[in-house]
Amino acid sequence: MGTSEGTELVTLADIEAAAERISDLVLRTPLIQLPHPQHPDEVLHCKAESLQPTSAFKLRGAYNTIAQVLDQARENGIVAQSSGNHARAVAWLAHRLGLRAVIVMPDAAPLPKIDAVRALGADVEIVPSALRDIRAHELAEQHGYVHVPPYDDLRIIAGQGTVGLEIMQQLPEVDTVLVPVSGGGLISGVATAVKALKPGTRVIAVEPELAADAAQSFREGRRITWEQELTYRTVADGLRTPALGLHPWEHFKRYVDDVVTVTEDQILAAMRHLTLAGRLVVEPSGAVATAAWMHNIVPSTGTVAAVVSGGSVDPALLARVLRQEV
Amino acid sequence: MGTSEGTELVTLADIEAAAERISDLVLRTPLIQLPHPQHPDEVLHCKAESLQPTSAFKLRGAYNTIAQVLDQARENGIVAQSSGNHARAVAWLAHRLGLRAVIVMPDAAPLPKIDAVRALGADVEIVPSALRDIRAHELAEQHGYVHVPPYDDLRIIAGQGTVGLEIMQQLPEVDTVLVPVSGGGLISGVATAVKALKPGTRVIAVEPELAADAAQSFREGRRITWEQELTYRTVADGLRTPALGLHPWEHFKRYVDDVVTVTEDQILAAMRHLTLAGRLVVEPSGAVATAAWMHNIVPSTGTVAAVVSGGSVDPALLARVLRQEV
Repeated sequence: MGTSEGTELVTLADIEAAAERISDLVLRTPLIQLPHPQHPDEVLHCKAESLQPTSAFKLRGAYNTIAQVLDQARENGIVAQSSGNHARAVAWLAHRLGLRAVIVMPDAAPLPKIDAVRALGADVEIVPSALRDIRAHELAEQHGYVHVPPYDDLRIIAGQGTVGLEIMQQLPEVDTVLVPVSGGGLISGVATAVKALKPGTRVIAVEPELAADAAQSFREGRRITWEQELTYRTVADGLRTPALGLHPWEHFKRYVDDVVTVTEDQILAAMRHLTLAGRLVVEPSGAVATAAWMHNIVPSTGTVAAVVSGGSVDPALLARVLRQEV
Repeated sequence: MGTSEGTELVTLADIEAAAERISDLVLRTPLIQLPHPQHPDEVLHCKAESLQPTSAFKLRGAYNTIAQVLDQARENGIVAQSSGNHARAVAWLAHRLGLRAVIVMPDAAPLPKIDAVRALGADVEIVPSALRDIRAHELAEQHGYVHVPPYDDLRIIAGQGTVGLEIMQQLPEVDTVLVPVSGGGLISGVATAVKALKPGTRVIAVEPELAADAAQSFREGRRITWEQELTYRTVADGLRTPALGLHPWEHFKRYVDDVVTVTEDQILAAMRHLTLAGRLVVEPSGAVATAAWMHNIVPSTGTVAAVVSGGSVDPALLARVLRQEV
């Protein structure tokens, strides 16, 4: 890992090492060409992380972390806390690698996400949202479990960065990369890879207007926390984290060019367009970057890529979106 | 092209040449791991042709054909006849390559498929279904258009065969490949590639019970035609072709190990499972091979791959499937 002004940052070499480490279980996802609804000759290149075995990019960082402490994980087991996709990634990896896993989930997590974790054989402990991180650390200390954090960790950031590495390999001419932001692990890794390989490429974070702590942090130049009552208003349940992590914030300040926000209606319209024109099943969080492009919130000039981060959608919500009832 | 008992058959070399020819515009689609609904440790490897730029494998054969007669196509334009996905593939290629295109479509084609073709700038001529092939030939003769047939052509078969070539490269350990069948272009090409590279792999055709002309042909050892009133009963609108083509029939007899059929309910259940567990948007025709695996109509032992052939689904149908209203 490199350091900058005393702060540790992930390097391109860390991301390349992660790519090597995770290649046996992680899908090299395709870039899907999505035509613009108003200008069919313009396309968005969608990095379809929804197609990963556990429906989201989270598998990359989790595996990059576990692979580096596999002996301890084999002996004692692993613990993670998450509202959904990270939990599922860790449980799936534990199942595939034959590890014991305990997953701490907030009581507000969607039921299908909890069921998906249980179906993989992990033990689930439900706690109030505010206590989940404390409880995961407690379990790690008591039982010697390896703790696999969701985003505030350099190994996680390096793993998620493989998304950016692949985009640069698949689309070297890219001018702008749009990335959803919540805790910031994904955008930190992606921005590190993109800026190392082609510094002129713009990296833009996209966030729901109703959970815009990163946008405010970017404008004010300091890490801001939003109340959970505010962030939980958005339909994008994967993007309700109240603040960027400490490690992500350091990467964010250094590499991210801009932060834009999208409305709830724009997110749902993007879900519909991704489904019908892109043949991609996406959850609301997975559609925010596409929403910013579709609604011309970011300039669509040049070659634009967007990370479609996950596909764990509630069937009832997807049916309402298809019928334009929401 | 090779010959066998006086009949021309596509060879592996033809398919490899096609792969080279089409690589700039055709997506190398991923294999998506779909867990079995009753046995989560068993997975189906879904070849996601629904992710192609025009939502189906049809782009492969059409491009392989047009690329070999590009000068004439540039001078005079191209004509094709199809109920949907082939039409859209030809129109998209014409748009990308700057060619004039006339597409003959049957009056029973779903409106979204007709609109998709028109949106790409092609001229559409609607005719009664029985007359569409005659009309396409007539237009080709009158105007010197290059005719791009949907399946009964060795260049088309070689192009569709690149699906099989990619499966063998991505999953060399595969034991069984499941392929939807209609006119037979796709399965002919896939089976040729699979049997050339690993003769012990089983190739199984899957068809709706309500349009089972290929199953009957296989059992009786002769090419059978079904009435359109029969084949049009299935929801799988891409699989209503009344008989295998003449060229496909020669490949079919030689390479296909078995033909199985699926019910309408099984097709819709597979659509739902592909959407929710596979994050793939598929049309009914695209779900038949998955349906055969999911409902244990084919043995699920060993490593099994299925071609998910297309994703042009009516949003209202997909919403009903998600709500289990059909």
